[in-house]
Amino acid sequence: MSAPVGDAHIAVVQTVPEFGAIERNRRATVEAVEANADADLVVLPELATSGYVFESRAEVDAAAEPADGPTATAWADVAAETDTWIVGGFPERDGEATYNSSLIVSPDGVEGVYRKVHPWNEEKRWFDPGEKVPTVRTPFGRLGVQICNDLWFPELTATQALAGVDVIAVPTNWVPEPAARPAGWTMGVHQAVAAANANRVFVACADRAGTEREIPFEGQSVVVDPDGVPVAGPLPDTGSYTATADCDLRRAREKALTERDDVLGDRRPDVYEV
Amino acid sequence: MSAPVGDAHIAVVQTVPEFGAIERNRRATVEAVEANADADLVVLPELATSGYVFESRAEVDAAAEPADGPTATAWADVAAETDTWIVGGFPERDGEATYNSSLIVSPDGVEGVYRKVHPWNEEKRWFDPGEKVPTVRTPFGRLGVQICNDLWFPELTATQALAGVDVIAVPTNWVPEPAARPAGWTMGVHQAVAAANANRVFVACADRAGTEREIPFEGQSVVVDPDGVPVAGPLPDTGSYTATADCDLRRAREKALTERDDVLGDRRPDVYEV
Repeated sequence: MSAPVGDAHIAVVQTVPEFGAIERNRRATVEAVEANADADLVVLPELATSGYVFESRAEVDAAAEPADGPTATAWADVAAETDTWIVGGFPERDGEATYNSSLIVSPDGVEGVYRKVHPWNEEKRWFDPGEKVPTVRTPFGRLGVQICNDLWFPELTATQALAGVDVIAVPTNWVPEPAARPAGWTMGVHQAVAAANANRVFVACADRAGTEREIPFEGQSVVVDPDGVPVAGPLPDTGSYTATADCDLRRAREKALTERDDVLGDRRPDVYEV
Repeated sequence: MSAPVGDAHIAVVQTVPEFGAIERNRRATVEAVEANADADLVVLPELATSGYVFESRAEVDAAAEPADGPTATAWADVAAETDTWIVGGFPERDGEATYNSSLIVSPDGVEGVYRKVHPWNEEKRWFDPGEKVPTVRTPFGRLGVQICNDLWFPELTATQALAGVDVIAVPTNWVPEPAARPAGWTMGVHQAVAAANANRVFVACADRAGTEREIPFEGQSVVVDPDGVPVAGPLPDTGSYTATADCDLRRAREKALTERDDVLGDRRPDVYEV
């Protein structure tokens, strides 16, 4: 909890990747960071370099790269150039294993990698599950990462909040659920609102948009503050956009709601059976 | 998990109690159950008999009653008369202790009592915290209870879902939060949507309305289905209303989202540090 904390200008970048066009997609992410050079943190979508709808192991192998590969180099270069932190998704190769991962990059280089702990559906064919929940000290606060389906498992957000995380960057590829959209929002936005509010953290979700191999993605990238209020977005369902918010991350250190209530201190792990 | 499950006609009753007017408030709850005699389950607000804004121990003592007191008798009588289950809130006296409790009443009588595990703010002056998370077998499915602030602690919903609960009845007294209402909803509705969707359970919230000792309550009683969709309500912010929904609780037994995904099976307790 001794990490510094302060103001952060946060940008969530909603892109429309082209499946398998890695050079093109990577260039789009670099250009998005350059276009948000005033940001302290730029969040990019899940699997931003590759696209999402893999149909074969060969396609995964063609797209996957190590955590110090060309995407890491490209993002480290633009992070240094713009003095910006970046969290963005890519398919990671590590020996025999592949992961649905996000790089955490600072102006000084790669600071860490988060491997999706809760892979979704066909991802389980292609990707190994992550086993760790790293947190990273930044000049603006402690940073955690979730990827898409992770948001549906609130114990992960609690794990991060208890570890002192102030802002959770969420690269995502939200797909429609069978149900209608309550209040017009895709369910991921509701989960982000609930998670931010229950733990008093900032949650910054960068979704992709566009339709890929007949799968539509939901857009609606959003930044939610510790009250559970969207302070940027939700962005439109379709198209490339960026939403930005000036966030005082000190607010995430204030877990007390009244002189008697504290969102972390009032937890009852003695009662939960989880 | 061997409990029966089936269709349930669920009513969430939004009342406007008058502080300290216990006979009047109790009668209003009985009349509300009679008016919903076709319901399988009627949910009443938190502290429905007493009102909420206590200012002294004497006021609590005057309102509190044992779990087999006059409110239990009144609700058991009307439950038998209407062949309805009831979950409703009252201040409970048990020896030296007092609890912010909810009775669980069947047509056969009192089936259990749930004591609020996460008391809020000044409640901590008046009430002891609950220590148990009972679940009750009903003809329409397994029933759990939360009270108001409990909804902000997702591990409680997970505890209930893992115990086989199909529907969570939530007597509540939501008060405004400092922030705006995203999508027009008080934050409790967002928490109910997220909890129902993440665990694939029904969540039926009966809120009170009205202003008491200058504290306004939020109304917006709601029934949320396992997709996270409000299937009844949110009701208006002010006034007495009832929202009803025909719920197929079998849907809460379907935790699989795809052939590869299961909302309970995909949890990662090996990774969470909560």
